[in-house]
Amino acid sequence: MQQTTTGEADGVALSAEPGARPADEAVSALRRVQRALLRGGGTTAALADVAARLHALADELETTAPPTEDRMAEMWQATPPRHDPVTGPENPLAPPMRLHGRADGSVDGTTVLDLPYQGPPGHVHGGVTALLLDHTLGTANAWAGTSGMTAELTLRYQRPTPLFEPLEVAAHQVAVEGRRIRTSGTVSARGRVCVRAEGVFVDKRLPKPRARVGP
Amino acid sequence: MQQTTTGEADGVALSAEPGARPADEAVSALRRVQRALLRGGGTTAALADVAARLHALADELETTAPPTEDRMAEMWQATPPRHDPVTGPENPLAPPMRLHGRADGSVDGTTVLDLPYQGPPGHVHGGVTALLLDHTLGTANAWAGTSGMTAELTLRYQRPTPLFEPLEVAAHQVAVEGRRIRTSGTVSARGRVCVRAEGVFVDKRLPKPRARVGP
Repeated sequence: MQQTTTGEADGVALSAEPGARPADEAVSALRRVQRALLRGGGTTAALADVAARLHALADELETTAPPTEDRMAEMWQATPPRHDPVTGPENPLAPPMRLHGRADGSVDGTTVLDLPYQGPPGHVHGGVTALLLDHTLGTANAWAGTSGMTAELTLRYQRPTPLFEPLEVAAHQVAVEGRRIRTSGTVSARGRVCVRAEGVFVDKRLPKPRARVGP
Repeated sequence: MQQTTTGEADGVALSAEPGARPADEAVSALRRVQRALLRGGGTTAALADVAARLHALADELETTAPPTEDRMAEMWQATPPRHDPVTGPENPLAPPMRLHGRADGSVDGTTVLDLPYQGPPGHVHGGVTALLLDHTLGTANAWAGTSGMTAELTLRYQRPTPLFEPLEVAAHQVAVEGRRIRTSGTVSARGRVCVRAEGVFVDKRLPKPRARVGP
């Protein structure tokens, strides 16, 4: 996360920009496959073939994956992170949503969600908006310069959040009281708030994995 | 969702069981690819080839996907649902977690999460445990016989939730007060609670999409 002081710049990218890296491209293609499967693509015969080809890909990738601790050390060196399930261009679960820091201290991003994120018919799963908000509140803390881990998160669902159309996700840090940080945010569609979040964060962090030293 | 009366049976499956269906198998293979990519599998050259093969798969699947409204009508006929992002065998975002209803009115399930679900280093993203809990509280309501949509959800993070080891997710309906339903739940690891959730649900539902009549 950036530790940039607020008030200096507007529209600063706080999440990794998907680029022309092979990993980003592979994950982007994987998202297309996810969406197409949820949308019901593939006859029964075609799906058996799709499964076989995906298992073959997984076999190849699994044989070249490094030891988990090495991968963890490597993935935590990236700033901003590239692997999280909300903004990460390297994470197929992430839409991915791109977040920007504003001069007024807030952060915001826009995303459009498809069928993999469905909860009630035609609408976004309430747990998915919770995921977007938890992450965006955390990013707002980093943008404000004092971040921590989520201690409490309260979500108020005011109206159903639609699939297939742009969602505005925004957050800002409200107060820092000793080690407690209060932060709030919203998910909106068509200018109307669908979900409000209020979070309490504590100023502590888990250590980042480090690369092993020596052979 | 089941509308089974509680107290009659124990260990009743409340989520779809992944089976030998081609869609389940394709999605299961897709999860292997997701995990292997997050684990850093693939050289740069290999990832370019992986991306090309995934794009080819997506091209094929997209051409055979039915109109969205037809797919929506079809997917909402399944009971229990097969497409949601927590338990759905047809949803590559779902771990998938299998939930069971107990004779005492509670529901529970076990899951192990890998790198796609990471938040803090080596631990589950707080938004992901929120997603698991929102869904499990909703399922507890269905099992108790009175379900609705999430109005408010409060999550208390007591300790970091570990990746790579079994998580117990449990929930039960606490009270029904008019149209308001109160439900609570936990995510635990090694017998200790990591996250507590309290939810307020309202007894209403969005209509399920229906198949179009006639040509």
